[in-house]
Amino acid sequence: MTLRVLGVDPGLTRCGIGVVDIERNRRATMVAVGVVGTSADQTLDKRLLVIAEAIDEWLDRHEPDVVAVERVFSQLNVSTVMGVAQASGVVIAAAARRGIPVALHTPSEVKAAVTGSGTANKDAVTKLVTKILRLDAPPKPADAADALALALTHAWRAGNGMGASGGSSGAGSLTPAQKAWADAEAKARRAR
Amino acid sequence: MTLRVLGVDPGLTRCGIGVVDIERNRRATMVAVGVVGTSADQTLDKRLLVIAEAIDEWLDRHEPDVVAVERVFSQLNVSTVMGVAQASGVVIAAAARRGIPVALHTPSEVKAAVTGSGTANKDAVTKLVTKILRLDAPPKPADAADALALALTHAWRAGNGMGASGGSSGAGSLTPAQKAWADAEAKARRAR
Repeated sequence: MTLRVLGVDPGLTRCGIGVVDIERNRRATMVAVGVVGTSADQTLDKRLLVIAEAIDEWLDRHEPDVVAVERVFSQLNVSTVMGVAQASGVVIAAAARRGIPVALHTPSEVKAAVTGSGTANKDAVTKLVTKILRLDAPPKPADAADALALALTHAWRAGNGMGASGGSSGAGSLTPAQKAWADAEAKARRAR
Repeated sequence: MTLRVLGVDPGLTRCGIGVVDIERNRRATMVAVGVVGTSADQTLDKRLLVIAEAIDEWLDRHEPDVVAVERVFSQLNVSTVMGVAQASGVVIAAAARRGIPVALHTPSEVKAAVTGSGTANKDAVTKLVTKILRLDAPPKPADAADALALALTHAWRAGNGMGASGGSSGAGSLTPAQKAWADAEAKARRAR
């Protein structure tokens, strides 16, 4: 059984999108990766429309089992955080419209899952993503690598994604540790 | 000629929506008002879906000429600002999908337009909105009154909305002061 996760690193200027297939033995294969970019010269409505249309296209084309989105915090750079949050809202609603479960992961969760350290830098994340997915070259820009890292994080943290969506289906196949992760994650998702 | 403006005071817990028709002589009539509410017990994706479906329904039913949304600032209460921004992103993208122009107005612009003072309190805004729209009772909750106030603000600031969408059509019918407002507004809309 393969779990297909679409990861999104939201943003107005660069929105990274990556699709990964993860097998039950944790082996991961990249399906697609890309970055949707919009210019600050465009109005906000046009920028959000570009992102909305892109995410719709990716969801339709790749039909992921779950969408993993970076959790946005207000402590980020204040000049860009509003746009990041607005873009993430559009992405989350697009998945919800299709009935696709959405999971949110913090940057430190992603770093920890991929590199083993919650304080790793972007280069380390990109390097490990490249290695894990057996890519010939590092995904660029960093937003693309981050989107793939989010997808990997989601599948691994939730015990290969079985029961990851907060429901109880499949949870019986998890180890106690995986079950604890899945429960903690479901709890985090319920919090605003 | 009548301009129909749909105003939105975005939020996850309460999202105010109000529709107003404004005649060229600035006389305004309420078409509809409501509040879409979601519970913090729901997951973020479900909450954004409820808002997305509601705004779609309102846009389809009322076919506004323009959508006016409160501009979100990161200085707001950090525990709720991310949800407000995500909801606003969903609303703005929904309008953009339909090709409906979107305008953003700050809370102080709204207060100034409706009450004459940029520092007026919520009660004053509600009171004036009730009077301006000749309503029998004040719209409740405050989010509903705010949505109507946003719609009024947009129409009035842009010189009854002619040429309000950043285009030049109809701008010739504006007084120099109205033209200046419309230009400033178009400029503000281009900024992130």
